[in-house]
Amino acid sequence: MRHECRRDLVLNAALPSTPKAEGYRLAAEFEPHAGVWMLWPERADNWRAGAKPAQAAFAALAAALAPFERVTIGASPGQLANAGAMLPSTVRVVELASDDAWMRDMAPAFVVNDAGDVRGVKFGFNAWGGLKGGLYFPWDQDALVAAKLLEIEQLERYDAPLIAEGGALASDGLGTLITTVDCLINDNRNPGLRRARIEGILRDYLSASTVIWLDHGLPGDETGGHIDNLVAFVRPGVLVMAWTEDRADPFYDIARLTFERLAAATDARGRRFEIHKIHQPRPMIIRAEEADGILTVAGTKPRRAGDAICASYINACVGNGVVIVPSFDDPNDEAARAAYAALHPERRIIQVPAREVVLGGGGLHCITHEQPRV
Amino acid sequence: MRHECRRDLVLNAALPSTPKAEGYRLAAEFEPHAGVWMLWPERADNWRAGAKPAQAAFAALAAALAPFERVTIGASPGQLANAGAMLPSTVRVVELASDDAWMRDMAPAFVVNDAGDVRGVKFGFNAWGGLKGGLYFPWDQDALVAAKLLEIEQLERYDAPLIAEGGALASDGLGTLITTVDCLINDNRNPGLRRARIEGILRDYLSASTVIWLDHGLPGDETGGHIDNLVAFVRPGVLVMAWTEDRADPFYDIARLTFERLAAATDARGRRFEIHKIHQPRPMIIRAEEADGILTVAGTKPRRAGDAICASYINACVGNGVVIVPSFDDPNDEAARAAYAALHPERRIIQVPAREVVLGGGGLHCITHEQPRV
Repeated sequence: MRHECRRDLVLNAALPSTPKAEGYRLAAEFEPHAGVWMLWPERADNWRAGAKPAQAAFAALAAALAPFERVTIGASPGQLANAGAMLPSTVRVVELASDDAWMRDMAPAFVVNDAGDVRGVKFGFNAWGGLKGGLYFPWDQDALVAAKLLEIEQLERYDAPLIAEGGALASDGLGTLITTVDCLINDNRNPGLRRARIEGILRDYLSASTVIWLDHGLPGDETGGHIDNLVAFVRPGVLVMAWTEDRADPFYDIARLTFERLAAATDARGRRFEIHKIHQPRPMIIRAEEADGILTVAGTKPRRAGDAICASYINACVGNGVVIVPSFDDPNDEAARAAYAALHPERRIIQVPAREVVLGGGGLHCITHEQPRV
Repeated sequence: MRHECRRDLVLNAALPSTPKAEGYRLAAEFEPHAGVWMLWPERADNWRAGAKPAQAAFAALAAALAPFERVTIGASPGQLANAGAMLPSTVRVVELASDDAWMRDMAPAFVVNDAGDVRGVKFGFNAWGGLKGGLYFPWDQDALVAAKLLEIEQLERYDAPLIAEGGALASDGLGTLITTVDCLINDNRNPGLRRARIEGILRDYLSASTVIWLDHGLPGDETGGHIDNLVAFVRPGVLVMAWTEDRADPFYDIARLTFERLAAATDARGRRFEIHKIHQPRPMIIRAEEADGILTVAGTKPRRAGDAICASYINACVGNGVVIVPSFDDPNDEAARAAYAALHPERRIIQVPAREVVLGGGGLHCITHEQPRV
């Protein structure tokens, strides 16, 4: 039943308590899913050629996931027919307007309790930095996505007093959270909030008892450095991280610092981590013919020929019985596939080309968000 | 589970069979509901004063229904915050763009089977007459509402090869359907389709074994003459109809013809009907200050001071344990309330002012659509 309380300017009323107080914990991505949510890309100032190549890439991902679980794609009213025409009929398409298509970051964090109930936690959203380095303006429709999704699913909502994105949070489902200082403790997200206060919010809203802070994400990650390009949980106690042996890669030193920090850390149950490495694809840049297809709009991050683009095999999707691993037409694609196959022996490994997604600023993980089933 | 078949230009794929072939029947409105759907009015060329008075009227109806069942209101992206602010927190607000707000006519017809499954039947929609007397242009977003609603609810869909609106169909849930010639057998909806062919479609898609045809609806009904301003089922075998003793009312003769036709008819089980009459409110016209608030837009039916408006107490909402009866600040309001109380002794009777809705061209029934629960 719906909880009655004051309705704010967001769609529906948030619960007045916190997940921790009510016995909810953040679910891990490797737990069973009720489904996966995506958004349909359309803005021509971010996605080249009127977003059609990106739409084809999103559709390929949805088609790869659909045999394994319910896939729902939210599209704006004007894109519904186009989305329907490009997607297999097994994908659910719902109207869900947004400013851009990064469902990982706009969806609620789903929390679950032992009784099998699922609720959502909505964080504040400001397009990865608001007026201080955010990627576009405005972001009002993005900020409504979490509440709209929960209304469709008829799930209750908590509103956390923190600006954060799903891609900034890696969870083992048991109280351990890994995140980066660059995203959360940043005046462009949460001015005035110090580490202890942020940890308190993560504890109250995600039941995170242990927060492991890394300083930086991947160099060039335009979110400021999301954890989901860098480190992911395979299962409790087991991590997979991006790696490079290329001394010319600006990531070289950060990779080592990240490994050292994680190797020295313990999780919420006091265990050391088993850490696996997957070598990065080779550095990539935006090609002239790609940049030429992007609409120039004031206030949107420009994408120019020769700019580095930020790809990572860690930015993958773990689904029910499947892992969708990005491919980049790169010599390391096969090693990434093999690494995931070894890490997830109980899941099928499917590779999906991700260059068109990376050109827009993220990866396969960034454009999906799982909804847990307990 | 979703059915796999060709995806059309509408959102999702329709089932290739028919409800009748698969054991489904059209549910009656007086059967138990899973909830009621509405749309949020916003177009200033139909609703005066930027639609704010209509929004208040819709919100009052939603608030009256919400204690009795789940109410969901679909709003366009730009109206979500406004709808949220005007509605009680017990009402679910989902994003669902439309051209106007007549959920009765845009929602699917819900069919049910003995196993308790619910599916939707989508008819074609052309704004009550398309380019031959339709009320506005375009209507592409309206035409998507049924499919979008079913995607949200994850219910399967049939597409019926007929242009029809929910307000044109009155059902007893047992195979009897009452409708009007003026709406269904009309070149502005179904050119070239004769009565026998239309009855075949109603049989295949709604399991209607007996179709009772009335010639006309209420005079001035801009839909062409929807049944839902004229006659409704109270329960199987029992009808309630609009009536007038005012010889000056252009409805006077039609009321008598309607009564005679219904009194001579038998339902799908071969029974005669018990017919109750509720006297009409007095004739109403659009006031100058009301007409002044309406935006003039080419292609939209104009609403001028002095134009007759078409109100009826039959255009009411039957919910779980409640009947919402329109009131018009009219001397007959009380008799209408008393009549409904006598007809529905097991339901609470609540009156809600409906003038603002009627000014826009319909009534409380027209702006709601129940979703059955089996």
